[in-house]
Amino acid sequence: MPTLRFPAIILNFKTYREATGEAALTLAKIAEKISRETGVEIAVAPQHIDLHRVASGISIPVFAQHVDPVPPGGYTGHVTVEAVKEAGAVGSLVNHSERRLRLSDIRECVAKLRESGLVSLVCAGDAVESSAAAAMNPDIVAVEPPELIGTGIPVSRAKPEVVTETVERIRHVTQRVRILCGAGISGPGDVEAALKLGTDGVLLASAYVKAKDPEGLLREMAGRLLGKT
Amino acid sequence: MPTLRFPAIILNFKTYREATGEAALTLAKIAEKISRETGVEIAVAPQHIDLHRVASGISIPVFAQHVDPVPPGGYTGHVTVEAVKEAGAVGSLVNHSERRLRLSDIRECVAKLRESGLVSLVCAGDAVESSAAAAMNPDIVAVEPPELIGTGIPVSRAKPEVVTETVERIRHVTQRVRILCGAGISGPGDVEAALKLGTDGVLLASAYVKAKDPEGLLREMAGRLLGKT
Amino acid sequence: MPTLRFPAIILNFKTYREATGEAALTLAKIAEKISRETGVEIAVAPQHIDLHRVASGISIPVFAQHVDPVPPGGYTGHVTVEAVKEAGAVGSLVNHSERRLRLSDIRECVAKLRESGLVSLVCAGDAVESSAAAAMNPDIVAVEPPELIGTGIPVSRAKPEVVTETVERIRHVTQRVRILCGAGISGPGDVEAALKLGTDGVLLASAYVKAKDPEGLLREMAGRLLGKT
Amino acid sequence: MPTLRFPAIILNFKTYREATGEAALTLAKIAEKISRETGVEIAVAPQHIDLHRVASGISIPVFAQHVDPVPPGGYTGHVTVEAVKEAGAVGSLVNHSERRLRLSDIRECVAKLRESGLVSLVCAGDAVESSAAAAMNPDIVAVEPPELIGTGIPVSRAKPEVVTETVERIRHVTQRVRILCGAGISGPGDVEAALKLGTDGVLLASAYVKAKDPEGLLREMAGRLLGKT
Repeated sequence: MPTLRFPAIILNFKTYREATGEAALTLAKIAEKISRETGVEIAVAPQHIDLHRVASGISIPVFAQHVDPVPPGGYTGHVTVEAVKEAGAVGSLVNHSERRLRLSDIRECVAKLRESGLVSLVCAGDAVESSAAAAMNPDIVAVEPPELIGTGIPVSRAKPEVVTETVERIRHVTQRVRILCGAGISGPGDVEAALKLGTDGVLLASAYVKAKDPEGLLREMAGRLLGKT
Repeated sequence: MPTLRFPAIILNFKTYREATGEAALTLAKIAEKISRETGVEIAVAPQHIDLHRVASGISIPVFAQHVDPVPPGGYTGHVTVEAVKEAGAVGSLVNHSERRLRLSDIRECVAKLRESGLVSLVCAGDAVESSAAAAMNPDIVAVEPPELIGTGIPVSRAKPEVVTETVERIRHVTQRVRILCGAGISGPGDVEAALKLGTDGVLLASAYVKAKDPEGLLREMAGRLLGKT
Repeated sequence: MPTLRFPAIILNFKTYREATGEAALTLAKIAEKISRETGVEIAVAPQHIDLHRVASGISIPVFAQHVDPVPPGGYTGHVTVEAVKEAGAVGSLVNHSERRLRLSDIRECVAKLRESGLVSLVCAGDAVESSAAAAMNPDIVAVEPPELIGTGIPVSRAKPEVVTETVERIRHVTQRVRILCGAGISGPGDVEAALKLGTDGVLLASAYVKAKDPEGLLREMAGRLLGKT
Repeated sequence: MPTLRFPAIILNFKTYREATGEAALTLAKIAEKISRETGVEIAVAPQHIDLHRVASGISIPVFAQHVDPVPPGGYTGHVTVEAVKEAGAVGSLVNHSERRLRLSDIRECVAKLRESGLVSLVCAGDAVESSAAAAMNPDIVAVEPPELIGTGIPVSRAKPEVVTETVERIRHVTQRVRILCGAGISGPGDVEAALKLGTDGVLLASAYVKAKDPEGLLREMAGRLLGKT
């Protein structure tokens, strides 16, 4: 697995218009700048079509947003781990709440990513799903209650017990996986709160992509993480 | 949860022609007869359309083969837990390898079945998937390597290590779930072998449904389970 | 194809609690009574689990709500045309907006239903989808704009142009298919309006299932159809 | 719609290893060279992750292999028409047999592509599906019997009647759509045969991607198309 340092901030660009094409590269470069400036680990997850463009334009870690559990070959319209790796990504999100997968496909994606030396980040909607995800030994599990996604109401404030229960349940299953939380993460304090609840970082999307001042927001967020490892 | 005794033999009728309609009821009655005769717990899982007919014709436990994670309402073509219960079933298979579900849907099905007082039996393809299934606290996990299903080559003989690894991994996660194994179970000895590997019973389908003498086969299988509790 | 007379009223029970189990049979018997009383063709579509119970309790036509494009065999949790037929249904809905199918699966379901001598009723969301459905030669196409389903605002009043455009586009493709409309059909006048727009009847669900007086409603609806063939 | 000239040869790179990353660009440049040399219209369809890299490296038309029927926004892991267009593609395949879509999604993808000024190429498995596809007014319909894909046995030779029936059925529905055929297209003569059967060109994949001499093969294929318009 490529070394990814923690705590980490992972920025999911989804398919927002504000994060498509050249705009994706611009947002990724801001992330790179703040990461260099502060030393805090920041990664970006652009959509498939922007993956190569972004990965070849910056030096911070890049994740795919999804990968299909299929090998190279006759799989028109699919996304293979091989293509993700060739494009320069360090890993992939798996089972995001907007792209839920079958249990057996998650298991296969985690295995394929590992075989290719890539990082698997499996998303889950609550503590129970998180422990199931953790049982499949991905590198990272991210808990994101779907009902809070895009609301600006951070899970760390609205449902801190979901985060602490997730950490507990995952730790019952394995000590090795890293834990992130997401959904509604929007202010600098949310990142700090996430760490206090026992996670290794956050996953955020609209708050960064649609920020009036994404650079300022990210600088503040990263600032709160300094010295928290 | 309705009491289901273990060890148990669960007979999946799938959508085999030999187990459709009246034939399903006939096969279910044979199972009932052998269960009474031997005292061994035997349950049947007929297809949706036969569920009520079978459940109202016999007194041994009946399972649905699948349930959708939706409430009663505007869900044309779906199968609700409420309908399964109303038909007289004691529970449902979830995530059979021929009807794989999303992780979040498995979690929802397990929850809905429990709320309704029904038994959840989650299928998984290997030890890793089984531990993920177990993390969601169903009543029963059944490991069935898909590549052996329908082959007549029993998992307990072809891949005993899959079964023992499954038991180990599940027990690392929880002590409470019951464990079954399936795939290729075809002879009386396979059932005995499954118990020796640490499971609580077996799930079988074609070997029973397509047997020349299903009654004889089941009597022998049940015989091997006597006194093994 | 079993003879189904037109104009026809098809009652979709969905998975409403008010139309589950014994309640499904009760609602089906009311439909049978009104059909006999008025001579108007009325069919019912109960959920899978109630299909046999309803079909063996009444003599009016019964439809399944969905069928999978698979043969009898190792298809746990699926619904085969063979089981639908064995249960006594005359046909099946295909591609209802709450159970959308792939184009290739719709084609396969229509073929399988025809081979078994059953009626195929393909649902579509607008005029364009309806003409695509008609191109696959099902027996019936039902247009139901999904945004009106369950609203009580009848398509025949809210979007009469969708119905007339559907009839036009379908007739450009084939003269042989019967055309129904649905979505929001709730009052006796809606049925009459549907016929005036060139259809052969209606598909309705919640308005009947949740009616305070389903018998009275259906009698009035049927009354409006008398002498309209 | 961007002008695409016919007859045309469309090269689907699928997710073949031989057509991933830099290799995709190399294969696309060969196609560009032959297109310039011969004047024959040749387009390429690389996988999502290579779309921008290929489209910005060549001047012949580029297609996406698939597009999701979703708008820009919170759709992690999806492929939007907007991203496809921004990357420089002229259109997208829709409903390839390796990525079958629901009827309603095909209809939505065709509409979204048209709104964005892009070409929609809907794939179908036989004559009946092709006429359904044509009823949704895409720019191009490609018939590809799935059982012949990747076999090297060309549909134009193995099942010429499927091609002629497809042309007939489509023309009954609309005069405006262009028709391609695919599956097993492997030799220069197959392209010529496809035109004689009434199509406007071919869709091919493995024969080109895995050819020992892709340039030579394509030159011969293109040669056979000269003067056939």
